[in-house]
Amino acid sequence: MSDLADLTARMRAFTEVRDWGRFHDLKSLTLALVGEVGEVADLVQWLPAEGAGGTAEGGHLRERLGEELADVLLYLVRLADVAGVDLAAAARSKLEANSHRFPVATNLGVAPVRD
Amino acid sequence: MSDLADLTARMRAFTEVRDWGRFHDLKSLTLALVGEVGEVADLVQWLPAEGAGGTAEGGHLRERLGEELADVLLYLVRLADVAGVDLAAAARSKLEANSHRFPVATNLGVAPVRD
Amino acid sequence: MSDLADLTARMRAFTEVRDWGRFHDLKSLTLALVGEVGEVADLVQWLPAEGAGGTAEGGHLRERLGEELADVLLYLVRLADVAGVDLAAAARSKLEANSHRFPVATNLGVAPVRD
Amino acid sequence: MSDLADLTARMRAFTEVRDWGRFHDLKSLTLALVGEVGEVADLVQWLPAEGAGGTAEGGHLRERLGEELADVLLYLVRLADVAGVDLAAAARSKLEANSHRFPVATNLGVAPVRD
Repeated sequence: MSDLADLTARMRAFTEVRDWGRFHDLKSLTLALVGEVGEVADLVQWLPAEGAGGTAEGGHLRERLGEELADVLLYLVRLADVAGVDLAAAARSKLEANSHRFPVATNLGVAPVRD
Repeated sequence: MSDLADLTARMRAFTEVRDWGRFHDLKSLTLALVGEVGEVADLVQWLPAEGAGGTAEGGHLRERLGEELADVLLYLVRLADVAGVDLAAAARSKLEANSHRFPVATNLGVAPVRD
Repeated sequence: MSDLADLTARMRAFTEVRDWGRFHDLKSLTLALVGEVGEVADLVQWLPAEGAGGTAEGGHLRERLGEELADVLLYLVRLADVAGVDLAAAARSKLEANSHRFPVATNLGVAPVRD
Repeated sequence: MSDLADLTARMRAFTEVRDWGRFHDLKSLTLALVGEVGEVADLVQWLPAEGAGGTAEGGHLRERLGEELADVLLYLVRLADVAGVDLAAAARSKLEANSHRFPVATNLGVAPVRD
């Protein structure tokens, strides 16, 4: 089983056995995701720009980031599950679309653009 | 290869071939993650509470959510890669910790609590 | 002096006397804003939909929300100051634009739409 | 009348005349706030760190930031109104508390810390 499918199944079981499904609507889970992304922002907000390129601060920042990025992922797979979205397939499809949208040959060193 | 490792490798290659690595520091990628989470919030913000429980609005909302959740995942794996975090391992470790933190037996129907 | 101008001046003085101006670039301040919005999300995420309409939980939630909404406002006025934006004027201008964009007469009870 | 009280009153009238109050619960408004903060993040995410210190890119970025920061403020005052929070008083109180929490004399050039 793939790791996204595995995490999705485990989060679903975790939720069901605690009878927390009634809390897990799309709006509540999005807010929970926002809360966790806020914790990631807390960890990196005052990093010096030059030090933000990697894990220069050593193991502590990496460990804290690992915990918060994990929380983001757990709510993300749960949200996708409730929404009926196949997250792995959606991500592969989006990556494919991005490859066409930002062709390598025409890249002229400009910053990526989103819309 | 696992989903997450596969997506991480693809995002890294996507970035390198476009020479976008210089944009992908921890702060910029967290901001990009925030932008994508904002798009998820846009999609669900005015859903009626009763309709927020699932994909009641049918295929269109699910499709749009799939695209935005995919964007969140792609920046998440990229951010984890730059931070030197093994996202799958971190998520499994966090789920394990949560199982102990919220034991089933003592669950009395209260809402989940985070700190 | 208006309260937004007053808060802006106080935040600027607060920053300068601590020599924190070097931390207050647009990206860092946006991340700080995100962190505070994440704390607001934490407070409301598991509220029952029917109880989310007001301050039903009584004084405690209102007090905690007051603290976090204050933090959001403080970073918002600081960010606007660094960006050279007149926040009060921008908000009045946006409200005016929204009045034209969503005319009362044509409102047919549909949810507000953003783009 | 103060800026914040004026904007709060205008947003309340704007909402009532369109009968949008039924959409404006704490969770929906927080999600709307998140959506607007996401647009701010979009504008600054790829700025070079050295250029993120101000409005170096000239008028266009400032104008776009003004629009998005205005949207953040409008949802923020609306959210505070629904929550029963006096935003100006809460911000002044928080600033006062921060002055004690981060005394000038003991500042040794370290980055601000939040918890």
